[in-house]
Amino acid sequence: MAKKYVYFFGNGKAEGNGTQKDLLGGKGAGLAGMSSAGVPVPPGYTITTETCRYYYANGKKLPPELAGQSKEAMAKLEKALGKKFGSSTDPLLVSVRSGAKFSMPGMMDTILNLGLNDVAVLGLAERTGNDRFAWDAYRRFISMFGNVVLEIEKSAFEKVLESVKEKKGVHLDTDLNVNDLKEVVDLLKKLVKDETGKEFPQDPLKQLEDARNAVFRSWNNPRAITYRRLNKISDEIGTAVNVQAMVFGNMGNDSGTGVGFTRNPSNGVKEFFGEYLTNAQGEDVVAGVRTPKPIKELERDMPTVYKQLREITSKLEKHYRDMQDFEFTIERGTLFMLQTRTGKRTGIAAVQVAVDMVKEKLISKEEALIRIEPDQLAQLLAPVFDGKEKTVAVKGGRLLAKGIDAGPGAATGRAAFTSERAVEMAKKGPVVLVRPETNPDDIEGMVVAEGILTAIGGRTSHAAVVARGMGKPCVVGCGVLKIDDEAGVLNVDGHTVKEGDYLSIDGFTGEVLLGQVPTLPSEVVRVLRNELPAKESTLFASFKTVMAWADAYRKIKVRANADIPRDAIMARALGAEGIGLCRTEHMFFAPERLPFMQEMILADTEEDRRKALDKLLPFQKEDFKGLLKEMKGFGVTVRTLDPPLHEFLPKTKEDAAVLSQKIGIPTEKIIQKTHELHEFNPMLGHRGCRLGITYPEITEMQVRAILSAACELKKEKVNVLPEIMIPLVGNVKELKDQTAIVRRVADEVQKEYGVKVNYLLGTMIEVPRAALTSAEIAQEAEFFSFGTNDLTQMTLGFSRDDAGKFTKVYLDKKIFTDDPFATLDQTGVGRLMDLSVREGRKTRKDLKCGICGEHGGDAPSVKFCARTGLNYVSASPFRVPVARLAAAQAVIEDKTGKSYTSK
Amino acid sequence: MAKKYVYFFGNGKAEGNGTQKDLLGGKGAGLAGMSSAGVPVPPGYTITTETCRYYYANGKKLPPELAGQSKEAMAKLEKALGKKFGSSTDPLLVSVRSGAKFSMPGMMDTILNLGLNDVAVLGLAERTGNDRFAWDAYRRFISMFGNVVLEIEKSAFEKVLESVKEKKGVHLDTDLNVNDLKEVVDLLKKLVKDETGKEFPQDPLKQLEDARNAVFRSWNNPRAITYRRLNKISDEIGTAVNVQAMVFGNMGNDSGTGVGFTRNPSNGVKEFFGEYLTNAQGEDVVAGVRTPKPIKELERDMPTVYKQLREITSKLEKHYRDMQDFEFTIERGTLFMLQTRTGKRTGIAAVQVAVDMVKEKLISKEEALIRIEPDQLAQLLAPVFDGKEKTVAVKGGRLLAKGIDAGPGAATGRAAFTSERAVEMAKKGPVVLVRPETNPDDIEGMVVAEGILTAIGGRTSHAAVVARGMGKPCVVGCGVLKIDDEAGVLNVDGHTVKEGDYLSIDGFTGEVLLGQVPTLPSEVVRVLRNELPAKESTLFASFKTVMAWADAYRKIKVRANADIPRDAIMARALGAEGIGLCRTEHMFFAPERLPFMQEMILADTEEDRRKALDKLLPFQKEDFKGLLKEMKGFGVTVRTLDPPLHEFLPKTKEDAAVLSQKIGIPTEKIIQKTHELHEFNPMLGHRGCRLGITYPEITEMQVRAILSAACELKKEKVNVLPEIMIPLVGNVKELKDQTAIVRRVADEVQKEYGVKVNYLLGTMIEVPRAALTSAEIAQEAEFFSFGTNDLTQMTLGFSRDDAGKFTKVYLDKKIFTDDPFATLDQTGVGRLMDLSVREGRKTRKDLKCGICGEHGGDAPSVKFCARTGLNYVSASPFRVPVARLAAAQAVIEDKTGKSYTSK
Repeated sequence: MAKKYVYFFGNGKAEGNGTQKDLLGGKGAGLAGMSSAGVPVPPGYTITTETCRYYYANGKKLPPELAGQSKEAMAKLEKALGKKFGSSTDPLLVSVRSGAKFSMPGMMDTILNLGLNDVAVLGLAERTGNDRFAWDAYRRFISMFGNVVLEIEKSAFEKVLESVKEKKGVHLDTDLNVNDLKEVVDLLKKLVKDETGKEFPQDPLKQLEDARNAVFRSWNNPRAITYRRLNKISDEIGTAVNVQAMVFGNMGNDSGTGVGFTRNPSNGVKEFFGEYLTNAQGEDVVAGVRTPKPIKELERDMPTVYKQLREITSKLEKHYRDMQDFEFTIERGTLFMLQTRTGKRTGIAAVQVAVDMVKEKLISKEEALIRIEPDQLAQLLAPVFDGKEKTVAVKGGRLLAKGIDAGPGAATGRAAFTSERAVEMAKKGPVVLVRPETNPDDIEGMVVAEGILTAIGGRTSHAAVVARGMGKPCVVGCGVLKIDDEAGVLNVDGHTVKEGDYLSIDGFTGEVLLGQVPTLPSEVVRVLRNELPAKESTLFASFKTVMAWADAYRKIKVRANADIPRDAIMARALGAEGIGLCRTEHMFFAPERLPFMQEMILADTEEDRRKALDKLLPFQKEDFKGLLKEMKGFGVTVRTLDPPLHEFLPKTKEDAAVLSQKIGIPTEKIIQKTHELHEFNPMLGHRGCRLGITYPEITEMQVRAILSAACELKKEKVNVLPEIMIPLVGNVKELKDQTAIVRRVADEVQKEYGVKVNYLLGTMIEVPRAALTSAEIAQEAEFFSFGTNDLTQMTLGFSRDDAGKFTKVYLDKKIFTDDPFATLDQTGVGRLMDLSVREGRKTRKDLKCGICGEHGGDAPSVKFCARTGLNYVSASPFRVPVARLAAAQAVIEDKTGKSYTSK
Repeated sequence: MAKKYVYFFGNGKAEGNGTQKDLLGGKGAGLAGMSSAGVPVPPGYTITTETCRYYYANGKKLPPELAGQSKEAMAKLEKALGKKFGSSTDPLLVSVRSGAKFSMPGMMDTILNLGLNDVAVLGLAERTGNDRFAWDAYRRFISMFGNVVLEIEKSAFEKVLESVKEKKGVHLDTDLNVNDLKEVVDLLKKLVKDETGKEFPQDPLKQLEDARNAVFRSWNNPRAITYRRLNKISDEIGTAVNVQAMVFGNMGNDSGTGVGFTRNPSNGVKEFFGEYLTNAQGEDVVAGVRTPKPIKELERDMPTVYKQLREITSKLEKHYRDMQDFEFTIERGTLFMLQTRTGKRTGIAAVQVAVDMVKEKLISKEEALIRIEPDQLAQLLAPVFDGKEKTVAVKGGRLLAKGIDAGPGAATGRAAFTSERAVEMAKKGPVVLVRPETNPDDIEGMVVAEGILTAIGGRTSHAAVVARGMGKPCVVGCGVLKIDDEAGVLNVDGHTVKEGDYLSIDGFTGEVLLGQVPTLPSEVVRVLRNELPAKESTLFASFKTVMAWADAYRKIKVRANADIPRDAIMARALGAEGIGLCRTEHMFFAPERLPFMQEMILADTEEDRRKALDKLLPFQKEDFKGLLKEMKGFGVTVRTLDPPLHEFLPKTKEDAAVLSQKIGIPTEKIIQKTHELHEFNPMLGHRGCRLGITYPEITEMQVRAILSAACELKKEKVNVLPEIMIPLVGNVKELKDQTAIVRRVADEVQKEYGVKVNYLLGTMIEVPRAALTSAEIAQEAEFFSFGTNDLTQMTLGFSRDDAGKFTKVYLDKKIFTDDPFATLDQTGVGRLMDLSVREGRKTRKDLKCGICGEHGGDAPSVKFCARTGLNYVSASPFRVPVARLAAAQAVIEDKTGKSYTSK
């Protein structure tokens, strides 16, 4: 039997069905489903996605069977409607639309009113008794077909229309009369002739073939390719083509068209939500020329139709057991459904809808959990722009640039170009910190800023990591910005932003806008911060419910990366079960501590180093006390000093002079030391345990601080569980060197205090060699924590600070499906992790394994970790809910064998 | 039965034997062996190395059995000699010497004349009838014992002697009379009392115990530890202690002492070789106070003794089947042998002795091969300093500094501080290029220099790698040099060397000397360069013989890394079977090409880039033609462009201005581009195949050049075997991207020429992820070449340019047993290689695997590669013989289960 490429639907029947999204695309499956369910749908047929795959696999040729099957389907369609395609008296008009498995809104092309020509337009006019309608339909068709199929610039057609409107002295399209429209049609046809050298095609069958091919072509237009890349949709699946009888919402005031949702897609509230226009075609709603009316007014305008629409859509929601996004048209009082599909929703709505539907017994808890994209939870915690205000700003030409969305949330404030100025300016009002890139020196500025914007760096750059850790909106890698931080000015594309000018950044989209755009605060965070009573927030209750469900399913623990008590408090509130990474070096950048750190680095002798370290000890001890206290009953993993020492020294002569004044070491010497510490590849240089091995006194001081803090709290009956972690180990002998110091100092301190502390002693696995020799390393280490940022850098040979320059090309060329610094490279890095866990546990059965790289807050990576048998993941506090949900999804997916979110 | 810690020897018998080096140490085994063989040896006993191990394992306590066994041995000794230890009339005197399994010359301590005290000295005087001798022996003993056992500075004793000599107005020790010596003894004893607060010990048994313990202690003195580290001797094996009756070469003109070799240890010639002094003790020969006589004069002085010595030593050589290094003493006309051991020898001697001994049927070819340290072969190819002249220079205070010995050979010339000046100055005479560090810009200067000296970098720094590739002497990482290259001056330790001053560097030792030290050219290289007829060089003949033997055994092929025809010619002469790595970028640094390369980098559009590439194409094609022609019949692996582009751009504003003049691109733009290309970690940045992926036109040009060259030669009937290699692949999709370009362009070029070329298409395995995904990568790659420099950097997380700062500490702390950039880390990097070869060959059975990192010329690494099943190693041309020999040794070791060189 010949392969079936064409599926008919209509008259309460369909050859396909609502589950065949793979074959018919989302739209086609929806139309088939609705048809079978007796929903009024204009009849039509779907050309399968397989046809599209065939087209691309065979040098853009179509399967030979297609012509015959299409003809057959068209005959059925003509029969169903009692009209003839191409008839000059009562022409059958169709729409031709793309429809892939996954919704790609606006990315591919649509043609309406196909079948019209110079003769049929007259037939349509006569048949409908509406000349104006017929000629308006024709001019729309010529424009759409001319643009989509004949590839003439859209603006050329618009110009024609504008010129006629100008000539006639009218403002709205609807003000043009039949004769005007006839003139427009003539001019449009002339345009087509001028541009293509050929007459506008008059044969409806040729129109249909060309339109169908244009849809297949549009699958690979740049917009569509980019959209798929961003949304991780495979290029291989192809699109279907839907050919459907036209119904007209623009046939008078008893006609209309609209779109809607069965629930509010912004906040998830169960309400009938939508807009419509009377006497209009679908594109008018989207185009924003006329302002649509709220759908409630339809109840007043056409109560029967309204009632029917509500009944149909609520039936559809029950049938599909999910919120529906639908399109409808009313032609002379008759309702037609044009589309139904699962409605896209914000994170807030996703949570609310999921919780409500469980309450309504529409779905199970498992389904509820699997339907929420873990990433969307971040939206519940971030401030957001007021959507209308942002649209106004963009329309007003205030969109300045687009960078990488690196920290969710919206921020608006005055531009500050240095950390110092940010601190100063923040005293007077909100500030957005703008830097070429950030480094640890900028921490203070980041703390006070509403949001952070950088020209250099990717999603795991310093700016991005720290911002997400702080829960701050952040846009990075916005390369078009020419920032002169000394002058306090940025230039882009003819615009100049000076210090103090307002800027707004959208960390969800990477957009940078001129001026202020009002934001709305996150309700959940306000509750967690005790700024809003929990009982006043439905959203918080729903969030809490979802998190509780997730916790009941997940097996892997979730910890947080936190360096200071404030972050630890938020981490606990967000459900963190301990701290997976405390970076001790962040504690050294505070203004009152840094000079001691610098003194230590500049010391020539061990004795002088020890003197400086002694001054740092009390600070560190207090830091650790704060963290251990907040995390009582939970493990707190403290990493010994990791970054190269030059990071702590001044970068310029001027700064060196200032430091010299402060600590009494000659400027020359400071500069010389900075010179000496310079490294060609600092990432692979003198850092991590290499510091503790060359300067054992640093490790000693840190261990003393950790154990002293633990002993003092133990005396106060606080249940402390410190875990000391040695970074950048690649050889068991490095670890032995350091554990010897740790054990010795820990014994000393416990003896001094007369207290016994249960502490663990482990290592980061972030050097490939460590993973490869895990069996040996587990002899010394009581736990492994995968530092997947560095492990990715070394396993792939990618500097995350530099890879931005070619990562885009890699994504475009599909060498990467994901940025490996955002989502774990399971094939390479994952193989090392798996090997490490297995071989480590062969040596030490109860070896505790976790991950503390940025991937600990990325959903697919969390799932991988759960499946690899890790004991915990550790994420920045605001990513903890994401990790909790992803961990639950891993269990549910493994149980059901299905994954809702994969593409 | 109690464990035996003490082994007696003497009177033609011995409790131990000559093979027990592990237990008795080298010296002890030699003495036992000689005793048993009837060689006249002063009797004595050996305390085993096991005792030393016991001592360190038990908190520096000795086994309880030792005292009794020592007493017993001493009784035997007394009986054998008819003397009493501690007797006041005829005292038995002994020497106490260390003796580990491996010779550690001068690293541990020796005490002579032990048993003397205030009474015994009188007995000795009476018994020998030689007052002066007795008191001289006593003062020597006090000095040695005081220094070694009581740990008083040696110089303190020397000062006492000098003060008396000055007082008496004499120059030589021998000019002091008995009374003078008595005065010296009194003053020395006073010194001991002042320094230790105790009298000089008078009890001979106490002296003996203290001396024995001092020897055990000396096993862990810093000198000994360093020596073991440098010579890769385990710290665990411990030393033996030899207590032996004293014989005296200083009892008149019928007495004497000497050292010798059974063959010439410098050139291997079979001749009786040595020096002696009449009326002297052993230490006088070494101390260099009196000039020793050539051993031939002994024939005239004491013909019977000479004859006996020749008979004994040639018997010993036959017995041990290797060249012997011996010590002897003649006491009143009687010959005593004090030591015999395998003689250390230069590389030249090692080859000559091995070849001669096979001819003499003393050893088999296998033994001959296994006895030559592969590294020593490099010495045959390098110029050397005239040993006497160097000693004069060092004694004259001209030793300026010591760096890392990075390229074997000696060089002397005028200091040039920039590449340009080196080129200029080399026109007038030999030049040593002195740079803070080198980079590819310096190539021209390195080509013209006799040797290269840098302040920064290790054994695999740019300077070291390139120098070894060129066979040039090189000293790197000489951190004490303060080099101001702009001013053309270096300062070190008060000395100033200006441009044009003479410098000499010893690439065997890392020494840097002021002024000229004459060198001797390498004979082998002169033959290979046709500057000396082969028949005139015995050494060349021996070298050739050894290489031929090695080739008959080895299974792994040996290729060379070479970029230009001149290097390829030398590589072939040295036995290379193809080129394993041609770095195409080295071709771009020539002055007539660099501007085109820079133009390419500075281009804003693909079109402009292509224009610049078109200018480079003819150069590259000619380069490849040269290489392919020289290597006809053998594979030539060409790597596509690898280094980050900023390496090709000027580093300073001034240089940018010069370039601007040349190519007409504004200075500002050049500087801005350099800025844009800056990377934080260039090692992990935009380089390797990432260049070819972002700029496909570069790969295209290079493939076009390779294939065009191959086609043109093919038309000339030259058998060409090009192999195109893509660097830095970590993902099979990267390789696919590049192979698509290669195949396409290769097809085009072959069509243009109408010729078919057999070429291979493969990849470097130098990113850990590549090794981990070898099964996938082998689908695309026809060969793998392990780039172990980068693979080591990434697997260990060590930047080779920066690791110098802590590698020394790692070696000192025994975290590393070897520098991982010199000798392959078999546990970590080796595991990845093994995995890669196995998994790659599962996908592609005939996958060709090789190594082209620096490790390809390191003997233990070559052996590892052979055992891992690689098809070839590729080394710099001058390391090819090393690799050939190591490859043969791997086969012989596996066959016999024995390794001669391991420690």
